[in-house]
Amino acid sequence: MRELLEKWEALCEFSAVLRFIDINLRGIGQVMFQDNPLTGLFFLIAIAWGAFAAGAPEILIAGVLAVVTATLVALWLRVDKSALNAGLYGFNAVLVGLALATFLSPGPLLWAYVILGAAVSVVAMLATANALKPWGVAALTAPFVLVTWLLLLATYGFSGLSGDGLPSAAMIAPFEAAPSLALGLGDFVRGALLSISQVFLKASPIAALLFLVGLAIGSLPAAVFALGGAIVAVVTAHLFGAESDLIIGGLLGFSPVLTAVALGAVFNEPSPRVALYALFATIFTVIAQAGFNVALRPFAVPALTAPFIVVTWIFLFARPRFTPPTSDEA
Amino acid sequence: MRELLEKWEALCEFSAVLRFIDINLRGIGQVMFQDNPLTGLFFLIAIAWGAFAAGAPEILIAGVLAVVTATLVALWLRVDKSALNAGLYGFNAVLVGLALATFLSPGPLLWAYVILGAAVSVVAMLATANALKPWGVAALTAPFVLVTWLLLLATYGFSGLSGDGLPSAAMIAPFEAAPSLALGLGDFVRGALLSISQVFLKASPIAALLFLVGLAIGSLPAAVFALGGAIVAVVTAHLFGAESDLIIGGLLGFSPVLTAVALGAVFNEPSPRVALYALFATIFTVIAQAGFNVALRPFAVPALTAPFIVVTWIFLFARPRFTPPTSDEA
Amino acid sequence: MRELLEKWEALCEFSAVLRFIDINLRGIGQVMFQDNPLTGLFFLIAIAWGAFAAGAPEILIAGVLAVVTATLVALWLRVDKSALNAGLYGFNAVLVGLALATFLSPGPLLWAYVILGAAVSVVAMLATANALKPWGVAALTAPFVLVTWLLLLATYGFSGLSGDGLPSAAMIAPFEAAPSLALGLGDFVRGALLSISQVFLKASPIAALLFLVGLAIGSLPAAVFALGGAIVAVVTAHLFGAESDLIIGGLLGFSPVLTAVALGAVFNEPSPRVALYALFATIFTVIAQAGFNVALRPFAVPALTAPFIVVTWIFLFARPRFTPPTSDEA
Repeated sequence: MRELLEKWEALCEFSAVLRFIDINLRGIGQVMFQDNPLTGLFFLIAIAWGAFAAGAPEILIAGVLAVVTATLVALWLRVDKSALNAGLYGFNAVLVGLALATFLSPGPLLWAYVILGAAVSVVAMLATANALKPWGVAALTAPFVLVTWLLLLATYGFSGLSGDGLPSAAMIAPFEAAPSLALGLGDFVRGALLSISQVFLKASPIAALLFLVGLAIGSLPAAVFALGGAIVAVVTAHLFGAESDLIIGGLLGFSPVLTAVALGAVFNEPSPRVALYALFATIFTVIAQAGFNVALRPFAVPALTAPFIVVTWIFLFARPRFTPPTSDEA
Repeated sequence: MRELLEKWEALCEFSAVLRFIDINLRGIGQVMFQDNPLTGLFFLIAIAWGAFAAGAPEILIAGVLAVVTATLVALWLRVDKSALNAGLYGFNAVLVGLALATFLSPGPLLWAYVILGAAVSVVAMLATANALKPWGVAALTAPFVLVTWLLLLATYGFSGLSGDGLPSAAMIAPFEAAPSLALGLGDFVRGALLSISQVFLKASPIAALLFLVGLAIGSLPAAVFALGGAIVAVVTAHLFGAESDLIIGGLLGFSPVLTAVALGAVFNEPSPRVALYALFATIFTVIAQAGFNVALRPFAVPALTAPFIVVTWIFLFARPRFTPPTSDEA
Repeated sequence: MRELLEKWEALCEFSAVLRFIDINLRGIGQVMFQDNPLTGLFFLIAIAWGAFAAGAPEILIAGVLAVVTATLVALWLRVDKSALNAGLYGFNAVLVGLALATFLSPGPLLWAYVILGAAVSVVAMLATANALKPWGVAALTAPFVLVTWLLLLATYGFSGLSGDGLPSAAMIAPFEAAPSLALGLGDFVRGALLSISQVFLKASPIAALLFLVGLAIGSLPAAVFALGGAIVAVVTAHLFGAESDLIIGGLLGFSPVLTAVALGAVFNEPSPRVALYALFATIFTVIAQAGFNVALRPFAVPALTAPFIVVTWIFLFARPRFTPPTSDEA
């Protein structure tokens, strides 16, 4: 694997076209924090699989168009080369593209939206990174969520765009438990897998496996935490009595999966203490996901990865001590 | 008083158990900014009184369970000792515990919620303190509000928890004044006292007096500003034509009370100029409380102390000059 | 022009009364970023025109009362002299006064509201400026929006104030396009002009021309970007299928106008690259305006300039490189 990547890197040194492809693949990989073109390629295949399986190839096109637009805009804005080459200006755009094509009906203005949203996501990424620099905390997918929320909300004021995939606005009301659906093991497995694929807004177990393989190529601990986070999320949501459809559809699990990977394997060195900290954050992300889903009911837009962002920021900003203080510090 | 506290402090030096109790009492005292175990003890008695008077002893248990959980989590997270010993990792948890047991029906998941919420409040406190460090502004009760809002909102998505004490969601509509209830002096006194006890989500005049005594033990100016803030709040709310039930119930006054204490006696040296600044902020907190109450109607959750936090942060971030510039500065 | 201003400045040096007038005029000018008393005078005339044309002279009085209150409060708070003299503590108050008198019915509490709101806007300006200092980003009209939102929301809880000019709360629903109104050139011109006058909450083409003249006196590029931004906003909104009434009324264009001026002519040196960046931000501000309008439907308050603030902050925080790196930097 390593040799393959080294060869590819050597080729990219000589070809601007290959470098451009490399940046975009890494951008896709960074949706799950992987600065790795092979991971990105697997993720792209999984997106393609999910899009065709859902009979919506325009979702794949929107994702690719978005990441390419973002890379071009980032070049125009003369962003920092090393961050650009690591794909850090691409992952928010990928998600903007996938989300817009998932929630909105196809049409010429959808493509204007994808290009505009992808371009603004780069500016928003620069802005968020600058805003958080004093604390050394990452921007995560905040640019994606902010830009996509504004774009989706605006469709309710524009006749040129229709959001057939968007939820309807609803009053918040006490939860009426559906006749207790006894979830079987198959449901749990499906829920856990879809929790992973829903990170990319896909409801496909096969795509989930492709995402897991791609993730494992980039980082084995990340793949372990993704799977662990998915299982924790599904079990937690069930224990609290969440709606079975949401659990099985992976819709309460994708934010917790991202929290688990971010805190367990990306921004901290894996250790038992770190794993416990990540577990705790993952469980709270399930609550936050349920809470955001409720809070957004009047607004008729989905929570996207906002619960992951809020919880992970809290747990990153807290900067706990995972190792005992050395005698010098104490 | 001072001797008593010194003796207690000496005992705590020798006993880990007493130190642990001390930290938790100070945590309770810090709800009103008092780093004082005796104040905390009075507050605890007031909470107990209010809980039993309301026939809901589980509220007392939830408050105690929450602060103890928070202290244990803070120890596990190896937080700064001096902040821990001052009770700064406990006050948000106390409020989380009281709020959850006040708004939700008892049951096994309530206790899971209390423990989880208290634990996250410590992480959120660390995070908020780190985020605000560059400006030297305090976290106030922001961790409590953020964590409790998410937990309460999520109950509308979970069948395992029911929020019988929560407000119903409602559309915002022009205010239809109830047939003008002529408020008597007794109503004003009751409203002012309950404005103090509602800081701890209690509607009991006797609890209010216990809170005031505890506060006076910690800081006489703080008690004066609490009482003054409560009176200002009740009068202001009445002048603007707020609903009499809310005024008498102390529900428009608890945030202003906290603002008055924070700006008048805690974060600034008391002086006529400071008092005027605090008065001004206290009046605006009444508006902010009414505004937040309205803004949260669609969400079916209470404003908690959010109005206090927003207004007090604005008035702290402003960092006005209360003393004339010295010749060196000018 | 320059001579006139120099003479005026010389007079102000000798008269505290003239200096006070000067500060207030500059405060009005700063609504569109102009530290220029003559610009402020033109803006004041335009406000007066718009107020009388709408048969609501109290709007003019509220605007003047607010800016004078703000200046007095700023003096009491001993703010930085140079910022005070540049009018930076006045522009938010002007807008608070205009907005309150526009949306609320006249009455004694309205004037209490104007004075209170103007006073708090100064504190909020100090707070926002301090909060943003580490990044060197301007506060823009955030203090105005925050303070006015709270004041307007609170009216739904107060019988003493009634918001006859406020929108009604409504559920968010898919947009039903009105039978396509073919907009003529006259509609576009009117929409563009009102986009400029709506910055001051006025729907008057003559006021718009007075604003443009005042702006051109302060800065010709600013006037060019204001007009350009207005045209871009009207065309963009129409292309996306926005409601014609909103377009013609300038209600989707005032935030984009401010974005265009801020990014094109105030916070960056005008250049082709900067103009493209500002164009891009201006288009996105139209989306953000539509999005905010939708998001605020449940709250029954207007978006004010929030879309301008959010988008402009993103584009300022991003701090892109408009000039190629020099060899030293590279």
